[in-house]
Amino acid sequence: MADFGIGVDLGGTNLRAAAVSAEGRILDQFQIFTPRGKGRDKVVAGMVEGVRKVREGRGDATLAGIGVGVPGLIELEKGLIHKAPNLPGWENFPLRDELESKLGCPVLLENDANAAALGEYWLGPGHDVNDLVLVTLGTGIGGGIISGGKILHDYLGMAGDIGHVTVEPNSGMLCGCGNYGCLEVQSSATAVARMGNDVIHARRSDLLAELKAKNAGRMTSQLVHEAAKAGDHEAQRVYMRMGVALGRGMATLIDIFNFPLYLLAGGLLAAWDLFAPAMFDEIEHRSVTFRETDTRVENATLGTQAGLYGAAFLPIQHKLHQA
Amino acid sequence: MADFGIGVDLGGTNLRAAAVSAEGRILDQFQIFTPRGKGRDKVVAGMVEGVRKVREGRGDATLAGIGVGVPGLIELEKGLIHKAPNLPGWENFPLRDELESKLGCPVLLENDANAAALGEYWLGPGHDVNDLVLVTLGTGIGGGIISGGKILHDYLGMAGDIGHVTVEPNSGMLCGCGNYGCLEVQSSATAVARMGNDVIHARRSDLLAELKAKNAGRMTSQLVHEAAKAGDHEAQRVYMRMGVALGRGMATLIDIFNFPLYLLAGGLLAAWDLFAPAMFDEIEHRSVTFRETDTRVENATLGTQAGLYGAAFLPIQHKLHQA
Repeated sequence: MADFGIGVDLGGTNLRAAAVSAEGRILDQFQIFTPRGKGRDKVVAGMVEGVRKVREGRGDATLAGIGVGVPGLIELEKGLIHKAPNLPGWENFPLRDELESKLGCPVLLENDANAAALGEYWLGPGHDVNDLVLVTLGTGIGGGIISGGKILHDYLGMAGDIGHVTVEPNSGMLCGCGNYGCLEVQSSATAVARMGNDVIHARRSDLLAELKAKNAGRMTSQLVHEAAKAGDHEAQRVYMRMGVALGRGMATLIDIFNFPLYLLAGGLLAAWDLFAPAMFDEIEHRSVTFRETDTRVENATLGTQAGLYGAAFLPIQHKLHQA
Repeated sequence: MADFGIGVDLGGTNLRAAAVSAEGRILDQFQIFTPRGKGRDKVVAGMVEGVRKVREGRGDATLAGIGVGVPGLIELEKGLIHKAPNLPGWENFPLRDELESKLGCPVLLENDANAAALGEYWLGPGHDVNDLVLVTLGTGIGGGIISGGKILHDYLGMAGDIGHVTVEPNSGMLCGCGNYGCLEVQSSATAVARMGNDVIHARRSDLLAELKAKNAGRMTSQLVHEAAKAGDHEAQRVYMRMGVALGRGMATLIDIFNFPLYLLAGGLLAAWDLFAPAMFDEIEHRSVTFRETDTRVENATLGTQAGLYGAAFLPIQHKLHQA
């Protein structure tokens, strides 16, 4: 049995690596700013350096392999990135083979949201179930699906795009994908900020207008959060509307999967108290499965570490299934 | 390797059994009307008789086991039916153990829609993919999900209830489940018949009113189909509306799963030409995944045999994975 795995999390801001024991303990960590502006080769060099650093000093412990979480669509069998809007120039680059030849050990690529879902399954609230869906609420909305203890993959290496499920077919906003009323345009941090601007445009909140002015005229979901906490009714309604749309999306997932656990993660979770009541109310009304089972909808608990843990678990799990 | 499996399909009308070779050839078949009115024990006796009949005369061929498709929620580990609205008195009855003790060989229970999905994966259009979703359009709407060549199970033994995904959140019909705008109340045969009645109520089609009167005052999806084929514009619009709602549901599945294949089955498929253009138009508009991949949405091909084939494949597949 493997003694430890190494996880790499390639984020837009940070590039991180960690050696994690088979019991889920972090043995060593590495973090640098992702040198995106310096080109792909520099980023790959940073990944190689990170892995080498956390691999040092492990004595005679056995390395199961390297797991790498990447923000894009992965072609698993070919070991390359099929599509990554935030990593220009990486498409069709054979990242797995490149890393394997430089590091001399097996490498597994994974979509970052899938890796985060696997991390929450391994060490988060998902440790007592075999099936869960993780939904991340950030600038966009993504997700990962764990079925039977393993990441659910499609033929391109990741399940579809939960953020583009329609939750408001007739009166929803236009999404960059071309559809109206996607979950992402109704419930992401971007959606909250847009609704915050709508509130100001309708002259419905002096407080929010003031907060925006103080923030150099830039609206964010955090400002709407701040106004809502201060008692601003319209700011509270923004989060209620976001919660209703999210509840619709969650009800859809619950009715399709009937899994025991759904986890929410990402920056918007700080506003849980503001959106959760509306979300649960909508789930309760929409989903017969939710009403009739013990389905749990909860906060994920590993935060930004989830993807790093999940990436490290990939080779450990792979070895377990081979043994 | 197993030489053959026996599938049993417990339907509301027919009880069928078949011996099927590992290559998918039917070796022998058995069919009776399901003796539902005579109670559970008579139905079980019919299943046992069917298995014995098709097992006879197989020479020294090896039986992999018995697979049984049942219209209800299965608790796989316990081998019993958790919930089956159409089989009163069967809930919590240990059907698997009962059949195993009477037949002296391993029995696997499965939800009937899941079994049909597995059948289409084995011998239908799904034979060249590893992942597919089957959606059945009948009186209600159900479905089964195949991921990595196996039925996707939740902790109660089946994935959730695709029929209760919301496709018309604000202006949809009230469903028996308590939600408004479920796929099932917008796109099932029942929905088509209801919309047919609406057409008559609004005095928008003399032809449909006439057809209904001739059918002893009973509206069906077939009558709407007949009127539509005869050129009745409102009857055609019923199927267009059904197709739009179905397209919304399919787009949701496509965005969530990103699988290569989605199959439609059930009685409404006869009206494919009437609803498919509107369905594809809606999928095209809603699903970025559909537009950017080679996703196929097609007719299933095994008809009412799908569940029987899938049930027979259950023990064959089980043995393959053990070997």
